[in-house]
Amino acid sequence: MQMQEVKTRGPYAKGVAKREEVRQIALETFARRGYRGATLREIADEAGLTVAGVLHYFDSKEELFTEVLRLRDAAAVEITGPSPRDAAETLIRVVRHNATVPGLVHLYMALAVEGAVEGHPAQDYFQEHFASLSDWIEGEIRELQSDGRIKLQVQPEMLASIFMAAIDGLQLQWLHDPSIDMAERLSCLWNELILSPEQT
Amino acid sequence: MQMQEVKTRGPYAKGVAKREEVRQIALETFARRGYRGATLREIADEAGLTVAGVLHYFDSKEELFTEVLRLRDAAAVEITGPSPRDAAETLIRVVRHNATVPGLVHLYMALAVEGAVEGHPAQDYFQEHFASLSDWIEGEIRELQSDGRIKLQVQPEMLASIFMAAIDGLQLQWLHDPSIDMAERLSCLWNELILSPEQT
Repeated sequence: MQMQEVKTRGPYAKGVAKREEVRQIALETFARRGYRGATLREIADEAGLTVAGVLHYFDSKEELFTEVLRLRDAAAVEITGPSPRDAAETLIRVVRHNATVPGLVHLYMALAVEGAVEGHPAQDYFQEHFASLSDWIEGEIRELQSDGRIKLQVQPEMLASIFMAAIDGLQLQWLHDPSIDMAERLSCLWNELILSPEQT
Repeated sequence: MQMQEVKTRGPYAKGVAKREEVRQIALETFARRGYRGATLREIADEAGLTVAGVLHYFDSKEELFTEVLRLRDAAAVEITGPSPRDAAETLIRVVRHNATVPGLVHLYMALAVEGAVEGHPAQDYFQEHFASLSDWIEGEIRELQSDGRIKLQVQPEMLASIFMAAIDGLQLQWLHDPSIDMAERLSCLWNELILSPEQT
């Protein structure tokens, strides 16, 4: 490597690359081994590091786990296809995909609850997660209301919050009973309860 | 005590009474001190016991905490009034009350996620919780569908699941942002999205 950018060469670059590698391995470990199987020890083994070695790249287990959620969000575009314009349909697809990776659903739910404590490393992630998701869904609802496709005279913020709540609540029910079809139920909420019937 | 029932006298009766007392104290500690403040140590102090003393009455911390949820359910009738006939209105009231006891909401959500692991002491509680809540809401929805108050041709089980999911998901959002009015949003779901408009 002969590149001259100070930030991307030498020990620092190796550190950044290794941190990325550990994060990717952690995500794969959650996906493959499930929530209980993805211990810090297991992740360290997979990465060829000791637990202390892993914690050289992340301040805490909680920080690493939160970074797994960020990486998973970044990968969502691969699940749903590029530039999705329809927030609801995209989220229904994400939820359908989630049913194939229970370990990541469990991690998301566990950090969502733990992260509600002031100062937890996941707190910022969830603040941003809820805010950006809400903005996205609200924007779509506002458009559909002005097109007359949603006739409900309900604040977009309220509908977006209900839709997001259903996603999280269905994931919780599904962790207890994997026979539940989360995507079907979420689709029902959007298509039967929120959208107005098409004029025939 | 001169009662002759073997089960309710002597050391055994004292054990049962003490167990009940610890459970009640644990519930009050969660309500007053919040989720993070209600450590096993704090609960033991409040009960005038050591931690080992508390664990003489419960197999584990998780069992005690699950018993707190059961006690809270039993107390729900005091919150909502006796023999509520309207499931949705009752649950909206419970959620409104929950906004006054964040420690118990946090405990419920934390155990709901932890309890999704096979063999966790809260697993049975949540199986029963989801099943009985679903039955109750489904029954009401079925009645309202036959009365024409709900015109949606959607399976009662599906609507009940969405309503329950919204309760849990809204509680999760609220843990991150206590300015959210959970009861208002849940009421919107029921009254605007599920119930059909009244004929005028």
